[in-house]
Amino acid sequence: MKPGKVIEIRGRTMGNGTPLICSPLVGRTAARVLAEAASVIAKKPDVVEWRVDYFEGIADTTAVLDLGRALRAAIGDAPLIFTRRSMAEGGEPIAIGHEEVVNLYDAVGASGLVDFLDFEMGNDAGQVRRVCEGAHKHDTRVILSYHNFGYTPGVEFLVQRFLEGERLGADVAKVAVMPRDRADVLNLLAATAQADAKGRIPLISMAMGPLGSVTRMIGGEFGSSLSFAVGEGSSAPGQIPIADLTAVFAVLRRAHGKS
Amino acid sequence: MKPGKVIEIRGRTMGNGTPLICSPLVGRTAARVLAEAASVIAKKPDVVEWRVDYFEGIADTTAVLDLGRALRAAIGDAPLIFTRRSMAEGGEPIAIGHEEVVNLYDAVGASGLVDFLDFEMGNDAGQVRRVCEGAHKHDTRVILSYHNFGYTPGVEFLVQRFLEGERLGADVAKVAVMPRDRADVLNLLAATAQADAKGRIPLISMAMGPLGSVTRMIGGEFGSSLSFAVGEGSSAPGQIPIADLTAVFAVLRRAHGKS
Repeated sequence: MKPGKVIEIRGRTMGNGTPLICSPLVGRTAARVLAEAASVIAKKPDVVEWRVDYFEGIADTTAVLDLGRALRAAIGDAPLIFTRRSMAEGGEPIAIGHEEVVNLYDAVGASGLVDFLDFEMGNDAGQVRRVCEGAHKHDTRVILSYHNFGYTPGVEFLVQRFLEGERLGADVAKVAVMPRDRADVLNLLAATAQADAKGRIPLISMAMGPLGSVTRMIGGEFGSSLSFAVGEGSSAPGQIPIADLTAVFAVLRRAHGKS
Repeated sequence: MKPGKVIEIRGRTMGNGTPLICSPLVGRTAARVLAEAASVIAKKPDVVEWRVDYFEGIADTTAVLDLGRALRAAIGDAPLIFTRRSMAEGGEPIAIGHEEVVNLYDAVGASGLVDFLDFEMGNDAGQVRRVCEGAHKHDTRVILSYHNFGYTPGVEFLVQRFLEGERLGADVAKVAVMPRDRADVLNLLAATAQADAKGRIPLISMAMGPLGSVTRMIGGEFGSSLSFAVGEGSSAPGQIPIADLTAVFAVLRRAHGKS
């Protein structure tokens, strides 16, 4: 971690020390998302992510904004990430196309209801630019992300994904890969450490699945600044419960002589 | 982990799944070692290591055997590792020379009081052979170890240390290094994983110091089969308390769907 790459958000610090713990909401209806939010927030994650690709009302911008408003009220002062994950990168099928997704991001970014928009850096360059510019006009931050559910590319390729996120205007760059063996898990961590030494924004990384679970626990040692953990429902393979992640983070803090 | 590289010892399995937790005894007097043993064993480590280089009676073989007998009684059915660590590899100054150390190992190995002798693979080849042959004659197992308190050599060098331990007749090979940065920590883990894929005996590895503490927690994911944790006193930098290590191992087991 270099000085200057820290993000302060609603009283939390991202990019410095223990990673923030983020719990996803994966409900299909507004009622379900809000019930999930109530249950998740009781477990005290640092951050909440709304995976809007699970929401059946995604094609109705008013419905999305209404639920965003209700969510904002439900989760108190926790930072909120708004994420539509594409099917190609592990998301759900949705009823709208690329252009409508960008319009939705614009509307949500402008609403001030969420703290981060997560958008895939592999999307059309013009759309990535539009999402970043739209969000930044309203002081909403952008996470540009890369997911590979098939395998783990080499270290240099992964380092370049983090740095490309930064180059494209992200406030945070995220990389998630599927490891096939122990070497893949270590490569993801090595790429995170190298990108953290080279880049100037906070990073998020993880190897998915049971083999990669360990990276959700100790990724902070290598430069990852946020880890997803299960509150109510899992949004990707290998996520562990919030309480388990909290326990591991406490052990790591003690090992480093912090309370 | 390959089939066949598991060691069954006093009801514990080494080299398969969760690493065994080993607590060192570092007392200078017999009374202190036994008090430490009583306190440590209450915290239920899987294995106990007696660091005999701390023991002021090391020059008196009868005193060592007497204390070994008392220790054996004090720790119940826990496996016991007998270790004289040389100053060059992080140990204490002692009153006897190389030859007397080997004679002491012979006597302790023959006594049947301990389960493992830990001897440095960097010692004179004839002495390494003598320690291995002497121990094996009495069904005592040998850990051949390599420590580097100055830095972390490259991956291939470390892989070769593990494999050299096996070639020299070890039942277990151990490598401990001092990391200077995150890459060193990952290199230690990568070397462990590669040696585990190539070799046929259980391995023990760790990166030392605060930076390396994480390897004591998650080394099992990469092929390390034992981790040292503080019961009463620490024997190397970066060791964490038994209770903390137990908590992390429980989280890892759950992440892998094991109870």
